[in-house]
Amino acid sequence: MNDMNASEHIMNYQKNIFIVFIECETSGNVGFLARAMANFGIENLVLINPCELDKSAYFQAMHGKYVVENSKTYGTIEEFLKTEHIDFIVGSTGTPGGSYNLSRIPITPEKLSETINLNTKIAILFGREGNGLYNNEINLCDIIVSIPTNENYPIMNISHAAAIIFYELFKNKNQFPVEGLEESTLLEKEYLLKDLKEIINTLDIPEHKEKTNLKAFKNIINRAFITGRESHTLKGLFRKIKIKLQEIEK
Amino acid sequence: MNDMNASEHIMNYQKNIFIVFIECETSGNVGFLARAMANFGIENLVLINPCELDKSAYFQAMHGKYVVENSKTYGTIEEFLKTEHIDFIVGSTGTPGGSYNLSRIPITPEKLSETINLNTKIAILFGREGNGLYNNEINLCDIIVSIPTNENYPIMNISHAAAIIFYELFKNKNQFPVEGLEESTLLEKEYLLKDLKEIINTLDIPEHKEKTNLKAFKNIINRAFITGRESHTLKGLFRKIKIKLQEIEK
Repeated sequence: MNDMNASEHIMNYQKNIFIVFIECETSGNVGFLARAMANFGIENLVLINPCELDKSAYFQAMHGKYVVENSKTYGTIEEFLKTEHIDFIVGSTGTPGGSYNLSRIPITPEKLSETINLNTKIAILFGREGNGLYNNEINLCDIIVSIPTNENYPIMNISHAAAIIFYELFKNKNQFPVEGLEESTLLEKEYLLKDLKEIINTLDIPEHKEKTNLKAFKNIINRAFITGRESHTLKGLFRKIKIKLQEIEK
Repeated sequence: MNDMNASEHIMNYQKNIFIVFIECETSGNVGFLARAMANFGIENLVLINPCELDKSAYFQAMHGKYVVENSKTYGTIEEFLKTEHIDFIVGSTGTPGGSYNLSRIPITPEKLSETINLNTKIAILFGREGNGLYNNEINLCDIIVSIPTNENYPIMNISHAAAIIFYELFKNKNQFPVEGLEESTLLEKEYLLKDLKEIINTLDIPEHKEKTNLKAFKNIINRAFITGRESHTLKGLFRKIKIKLQEIEK
């Protein structure tokens, strides 16, 4: 029994999305971001420790003024995440690290759009105009998205980057999740990582390598947007491996 | 014999693109647009009868300052088109007309990217911040592109719209034109329209209906991005129809 029509579906998707601007430096950029949000029907704007908002924030938002007016401010990103019970955190960066930096291997906005589960609560983080997201903020993210740009000047204006990501998320409004292919929940993925950690603990692996292994696995399952079914399958496998390894230990 | 590598190919594509901002009202927006162009390696900025550029144009462009510095200014759009020998004109609008308005049936940026021939000289027109493109400017365009947005607030900031269009044009940098499927040239299409006009002239069709017919046909071949081969095929057919009709007239 599903009485929702397509457009109500979309409105629900958009209600699940929180746009988080961390330590904005220029009031006008908050306005530009709010306008881009309104253009794509996104309403939840979160400001973390922002600069003072002057009238330029409202002026640049144009008809998206209500987004600025209804924005919520938190002192820290952790405070926001705890309050809103976010399932999935997307970080945006114009300076993706090389493959040596596991935390920063990015996906494209198109790939994000194809695979993200809009039925879960999602936060998309945008960093400071000057310095972007700090490493500790990148590390909070489940996935990093980066826009393919010209290599000579990859750093985009934050509201331009945001507009492109919003556009990709909603350009095919008629795509709905296929039943049985829902993305794995945060809890399922955490259990999976816990199992892997227990497996690693039965092996002769130093602590710093354990961290790298877990991070790599976490990145892979996030970038693949593994489904609940896949998560369940892996969990069964991990459990069997774990039990066998623990038996040997005794 | 083709010694160009992929990235040289792309640079050539980008050199074929002219971004035309018509009667800009705010100097800062020229800067935001220039930055977005630089982010995607596009360098040809054309200003038609612009407002006075103050330091905000250079400041907002950030590392795209050189795009503003090298921009060319013309008094009218016609003057620009004549000087640069443009093959294909793309207009951008946030307010696509209904199907009753033949001039304004738009395609999406994605469709534009899939089908446009980047080997020809292309102008992409952006209109005034307040009023967009006027009807006479829309009528100059071979195609209209519009970004799918939330119906409640479809009017985007001009540099946001531009960033999305640039992103779509270059997001799949490795796509190259398939031989034999080159888009029809401007001249081929003009001959086709001339043939159709001659056909119509042999029929009992009032002048205002003739215009509508020609406009509809022109829109269709542009939106379909017909290939040279298709154009050639149609031309043969039109010629046969024309000859037959003119024989009957005698």
